Amino acid sequence: MKVDCTVEIQGHIIDSLTLPKIMDTILDLGAAYTIKEIKIGNDKTNVSYARLNVFADSHEILDNVLDNITKQGATLLEEKNVTLGECPKDRTLPDDFYSTTNMITEILLNDEWVPAGNTAMDCAIVVDEKNKKACCTKLSQIKKGDKVVMGHDGVKVHPLRKHEDKSIFTFMGSEISSEKPKSLLINKIAKRMQEIKENNEGKILFVLGPAVVHTKSRDNFIKLIKMGMVDYMFAGNALATHDIEADLYGTSLGISLEDGNPIPGGHSHHLRAINKINQQGSIRNAVESGVLKTGIMHACIKNDIDFVLAGSIRDDGPLPEVITNTVTAQCEMRKRIQDVKMTIMIASMLHSIAVGNLLPAYVETVCVDINPAVVTKLSDRGSFQTMGLVTDVEAFIRDLVCALERIAVK
Amino acid sequence: MKVDCTVEIQGHIIDSLTLPKIMDTILDLGAAYTIKEIKIGNDKTNVSYARLNVFADSHEILDNVLDNITKQGATLLEEKNVTLGECPKDRTLPDDFYSTTNMITEILLNDEWVPAGNTAMDCAIVVDEKNKKACCTKLSQIKKGDKVVMGHDGVKVHPLRKHEDKSIFTFMGSEISSEKPKSLLINKIAKRMQEIKENNEGKILFVLGPAVVHTKSRDNFIKLIKMGMVDYMFAGNALATHDIEADLYGTSLGISLEDGNPIPGGHSHHLRAINKINQQGSIRNAVESGVLKTGIMHACIKNDIDFVLAGSIRDDGPLPEVITNTVTAQCEMRKRIQDVKMTIMIASMLHSIAVGNLLPAYVETVCVDINPAVVTKLSDRGSFQTMGLVTDVEAFIRDLVCALERIAVK
Amino acid sequence: MKVDCTVEIQGHIIDSLTLPKIMDTILDLGAAYTIKEIKIGNDKTNVSYARLNVFADSHEILDNVLDNITKQGATLLEEKNVTLGECPKDRTLPDDFYSTTNMITEILLNDEWVPAGNTAMDCAIVVDEKNKKACCTKLSQIKKGDKVVMGHDGVKVHPLRKHEDKSIFTFMGSEISSEKPKSLLINKIAKRMQEIKENNEGKILFVLGPAVVHTKSRDNFIKLIKMGMVDYMFAGNALATHDIEADLYGTSLGISLEDGNPIPGGHSHHLRAINKINQQGSIRNAVESGVLKTGIMHACIKNDIDFVLAGSIRDDGPLPEVITNTVTAQCEMRKRIQDVKMTIMIASMLHSIAVGNLLPAYVETVCVDINPAVVTKLSDRGSFQTMGLVTDVEAFIRDLVCALERIAVK
Amino acid sequence: MKVDCTVEIQGHIIDSLTLPKIMDTILDLGAAYTIKEIKIGNDKTNVSYARLNVFADSHEILDNVLDNITKQGATLLEEKNVTLGECPKDRTLPDDFYSTTNMITEILLNDEWVPAGNTAMDCAIVVDEKNKKACCTKLSQIKKGDKVVMGHDGVKVHPLRKHEDKSIFTFMGSEISSEKPKSLLINKIAKRMQEIKENNEGKILFVLGPAVVHTKSRDNFIKLIKMGMVDYMFAGNALATHDIEADLYGTSLGISLEDGNPIPGGHSHHLRAINKINQQGSIRNAVESGVLKTGIMHACIKNDIDFVLAGSIRDDGPLPEVITNTVTAQCEMRKRIQDVKMTIMIASMLHSIAVGNLLPAYVETVCVDINPAVVTKLSDRGSFQTMGLVTDVEAFIRDLVCALERIAVK
Repeated sequence: MKVDCTVEIQGHIIDSLTLPKIMDTILDLGAAYTIKEIKIGNDKTNVSYARLNVFADSHEILDNVLDNITKQGATLLEEKNVTLGECPKDRTLPDDFYSTTNMITEILLNDEWVPAGNTAMDCAIVVDEKNKKACCTKLSQIKKGDKVVMGHDGVKVHPLRKHEDKSIFTFMGSEISSEKPKSLLINKIAKRMQEIKENNEGKILFVLGPAVVHTKSRDNFIKLIKMGMVDYMFAGNALATHDIEADLYGTSLGISLEDGNPIPGGHSHHLRAINKINQQGSIRNAVESGVLKTGIMHACIKNDIDFVLAGSIRDDGPLPEVITNTVTAQCEMRKRIQDVKMTIMIASMLHSIAVGNLLPAYVETVCVDINPAVVTKLSDRGSFQTMGLVTDVEAFIRDLVCALERIAVK
Repeated sequence: MKVDCTVEIQGHIIDSLTLPKIMDTILDLGAAYTIKEIKIGNDKTNVSYARLNVFADSHEILDNVLDNITKQGATLLEEKNVTLGECPKDRTLPDDFYSTTNMITEILLNDEWVPAGNTAMDCAIVVDEKNKKACCTKLSQIKKGDKVVMGHDGVKVHPLRKHEDKSIFTFMGSEISSEKPKSLLINKIAKRMQEIKENNEGKILFVLGPAVVHTKSRDNFIKLIKMGMVDYMFAGNALATHDIEADLYGTSLGISLEDGNPIPGGHSHHLRAINKINQQGSIRNAVESGVLKTGIMHACIKNDIDFVLAGSIRDDGPLPEVITNTVTAQCEMRKRIQDVKMTIMIASMLHSIAVGNLLPAYVETVCVDINPAVVTKLSDRGSFQTMGLVTDVEAFIRDLVCALERIAVK
Repeated sequence: MKVDCTVEIQGHIIDSLTLPKIMDTILDLGAAYTIKEIKIGNDKTNVSYARLNVFADSHEILDNVLDNITKQGATLLEEKNVTLGECPKDRTLPDDFYSTTNMITEILLNDEWVPAGNTAMDCAIVVDEKNKKACCTKLSQIKKGDKVVMGHDGVKVHPLRKHEDKSIFTFMGSEISSEKPKSLLINKIAKRMQEIKENNEGKILFVLGPAVVHTKSRDNFIKLIKMGMVDYMFAGNALATHDIEADLYGTSLGISLEDGNPIPGGHSHHLRAINKINQQGSIRNAVESGVLKTGIMHACIKNDIDFVLAGSIRDDGPLPEVITNTVTAQCEMRKRIQDVKMTIMIASMLHSIAVGNLLPAYVETVCVDINPAVVTKLSDRGSFQTMGLVTDVEAFIRDLVCALERIAVK
Repeated sequence: MKVDCTVEIQGHIIDSLTLPKIMDTILDLGAAYTIKEIKIGNDKTNVSYARLNVFADSHEILDNVLDNITKQGATLLEEKNVTLGECPKDRTLPDDFYSTTNMITEILLNDEWVPAGNTAMDCAIVVDEKNKKACCTKLSQIKKGDKVVMGHDGVKVHPLRKHEDKSIFTFMGSEISSEKPKSLLINKIAKRMQEIKENNEGKILFVLGPAVVHTKSRDNFIKLIKMGMVDYMFAGNALATHDIEADLYGTSLGISLEDGNPIPGGHSHHLRAINKINQQGSIRNAVESGVLKTGIMHACIKNDIDFVLAGSIRDDGPLPEVITNTVTAQCEMRKRIQDVKMTIMIASMLHSIAVGNLLPAYVETVCVDINPAVVTKLSDRGSFQTMGLVTDVEAFIRDLVCALERIAVK
């Protein structure tokens, strides 16, 4: 073992499993460690501390180890400033760029710890040395000449810790099951939404799939809007189209919302709905001209809810407000995500995964779907803040509205 | 084509697809037909009629064709009496026995049409010539010397027809989806339950899985019992055990029903619950002695609901009332099924499939599960009377109770 | 019943269920019929014929009936020329436009039957009167001033019929199951691919999801390319990215393709892979410069396979060849689909559904996924030509290669 | 905090997460701890050690804590002998009985550590003081007068530890995915089977569902039998019935194993197959008389494979060898499990869960199913020894045979 260095880990490193995982990583990568010091907190509120010597046979191995364990929250004892590299052209990074996690990250820039803004995973950190600023930036937004963080020196990651956080999400864990009592969980979500709004903690984002319309949940979702519980709504062309179809024809994908039966000729309703909006030029125009009288899109426009409709290759039409460029749509979503405190994703695999990729780990996220596979994918983000609920979409929205109404009455 | 015969088909043979399917079967089996006469009703209430000559190269092929198309509702023009064979020993049939469908069946016994009682699929028809009686009988119940129907002569099957039936099940079809408005369907189920009870049309059977307890739906199910909507309850050891565990420990499979979190030590609660009942000798004793104070089993016993708890190899314990012999359990269930008009199966794959195998096709059946695979398996029974609902169990039972309460108020 | 008209239906209208379905539709829409003439073919090759009088209380109802039953293959006895309407602006149709099915369609234009090209569902039919041409056109491609078919007059749809078609797809039906012997089916698919290539019947399109890479099926898919069995490949950014990641780092989404274990640091491999390609300017450049040495994208470029990579909002990067505009991506796919005879969709829900929406019903389609929900969605297209296979992706591709190799040897 | 005690934990208590989990449990149950001593091994082979003082407000709380943490591997510093209670009647335990885990357990009986035989979860430990023996016993087998362990004094549990075990199962983890390369895993399973047989480490048990027959995998499974890789086979009536149906009629549940199409009349084949066996008296008789000529049951009997066929309420028939009493069936399975080293469960939810409940944690278990829900349920047993594989059953068995053949050749 020719090379070595010393790292520190502190926080709830035992009960958050941070220390055992770091020890595992070191050994898995072919290095070794000795523990120089360890102090273990006696209870959940006491902080633990460990100092480890890490040994490796080559600089390459040691670098790989440090790259990985610093992402898990270890920091080098001797703090070095970040190294910067220059981007050779647009959308192109230097080879050894630092790739971000979705956790809060700081960089040591000229001996000063600077937060890396716009936390998101799979980004590079673009640094503005003059203004002492750093920003997580998606590859598609990289410009020629941007300075980005290289390697792992001078990067500190703050992993979320299980017992540190006081939010109900901690308490709930990321349990996924259709075979559990759900009313208490829904009450807690409602209470948390209320709290966020009362304390101005941040924005609440809803990500919706078309099943919200198919299951006849439009009216209940509109109640959430009117209660002030929806700051942003992200969805696709399908949600908006079927919502408008429901207004104009009383169907969703040609299925009557009255009795659940297919309407003869109903299969063309969604296309006729889009065409009606195209005739008006936009959904907003259709609301203003009185062509569109009810529904989620109508309520969003009437109540000034900021929405993003992102396109996909499955779309018919699409509607005028749908952003057909996927990179532009991502940027529009990321912009709004910066001040989001809570995200509720309902019945949309594509949009939920897309938004999940953009969210910082600290955003409290609820993913609701009747399909456990979707919920599992989302809950696997490795954050204590994500909770999956396998249940019926219609029942969830209805129960959430009821829970919020009960809180309001008190 | 050396052999031939003439068959008739009547009823709604076009719109119930009976005629096209019979024509398909004849050709698929290597025979041929000519249509001798066809009359097609002008609308849904008019009856159609077809007479076909069927040709085949051998008696064997013709027999195979007749065996199949008579099960689809075709009848031989020249009616022959049934042929009977004798069972050589217990649980053993003669080789060419007639295997039943789950549809109403009559046999021509000494020139008289006699109904085959206890309709169920995969049975032999045991005939009592003296008393002019016939009865569908499971292989396990066959006794040495029983006379059973052989081949297909003298057997008439009455297929269910789509537009003939006035029940709401017809109207609903056997559509399966979590992406549909469900409130109307649940209202119709409630109305139909009310009707069945008012008109004394027959019994209502519930088949329950343990998720009814896990999702905290005990109180709502007890409401159904108290409304008089539950005549029979079929379940397994798990439902009863977790129901009793909930009463004694407030948990279900060790999970708190208050907050959905696992209780340390809770994994042994179900075993302790069974042991408590064993100490009392039976669930009934535990109710009477006051050891068991609440829950579904308690309500069943207090309200004289006739229940069958059937054992499985997964069971711990099991509880004293659980029938550990699977053949005995089947018999107990079949006995009760004879006067059942409606079956509601909730969240139990094993018990739902077992009961589905025993039910006549005319029993109106609702299968509710959050897992579409279970619903599909049950709905594939080829009956217009089976409706699948992919939804949350807790929400379904709650909404059903509400719908019944609304009807009661009117 | 004040208004009426006469329609004809011919073909295998009984055994393809066309006639019963049309009769159902008429009654469901509140109209009535009398059968004026019916001739039923005696076997599967004989054609049947029916002539019906349809009655309704209003022109509106009759129009709705005709709109629906003409899509099912009924034709008006008195043929009328199509009515044309003019599009008021780009992406906007007149209100009563005819919305297409995915079946072959002809229009009666100035007393001449003209085929509507580019068959696809949910299109308008744009008519070029001068050149006697008609073309199914997506809403997004409609230009101001386009003349489109209105209502249902003069439109004839040719439904696919079950027993008419000689392809193996007919024989196989659209059965979906993991619990069936699959080797025979895979042999038949292989034989059919061979046939299509030998007889120059058309192109073979593969739609691929990233699981093709994750399951280590790249080499087997490359064998299909080298056998000449892949004319087009449609996929997303993920397939191409992980294919390139596998070449550069030996991982797929950070999981080692050698042993299936996560590689520490592997989560950034996909981003580094995209960056490597961005450095080169394009995948093609990376192949030519020798940076990219193996894999599916490499084989596509080396073997001149025409591919479309369509973007989605989930994408990191994306790679330079990915089309980020969803409408443009749709157009590029539709262009290639026109001469496709067979489509094999593997493990991609988003791309499979997107392509499914664009395909004419007559394209023989195989959808392979381990998730039955995806296969069901695709197979529900109402075409006898779509076959679903619930199986392991890796096993399917491997077995398909083996079957093709066996055929080649003979 | 009025009461306290001291516990020790040793082994790989950090990287197996034992220590963090015990600390969590103490706090969750309302108690507290101080760490008296902690030594942490420097690498995966070094053992760690911790000594903790546990404090609580009441004896009740302390007892609850000890009950839980001793099951996780903590031992009281002052060792006490077990307390014994007497069973008041058959199938009935005293209230405070100790409920077992599925891990190796020892009890301190008159100052001597005695292993509790027949390791299985949810049992009581019946003690034979005279012979210094202890045995995990299911509630159904408890006899009046049995002496059983009470509380948690004198009980030591040996949790499995991740890095201690050298088997490939450790390395593989309990990862579940259809989206991973599987060939390496299957090779390792094959190699491990080979090793177990070569070193006489124990028996190999297969648990089979009927999909093994439906997917035409009988011949490949028979190869496993002939290679000597199957010591026990557990299955239900369905597997045996369809296996025999395949021999007698070439179908499985009426589906042709040649082409996957339903055979007209095939729905009664399974009943006719059972009847044929009943005519012979037993499957064994049918093999000996030459009525049954091929298949899995035939090979089991010809090769003296010890099998258990366990009944369920879904069964038709059942076959003579099927054990219709579920408690008897459980006992028969448990008897054979005692010397099992490896279990491979294929495509049977009911039987796999039933066997999973009976298996000690140290049995290396592979669960193969195309449905991820089944695999998840089985893999959740909390043992590093259980591996789930989401894949096609037919492909798995075929690949396993190939892998074993390759090993044999070397």
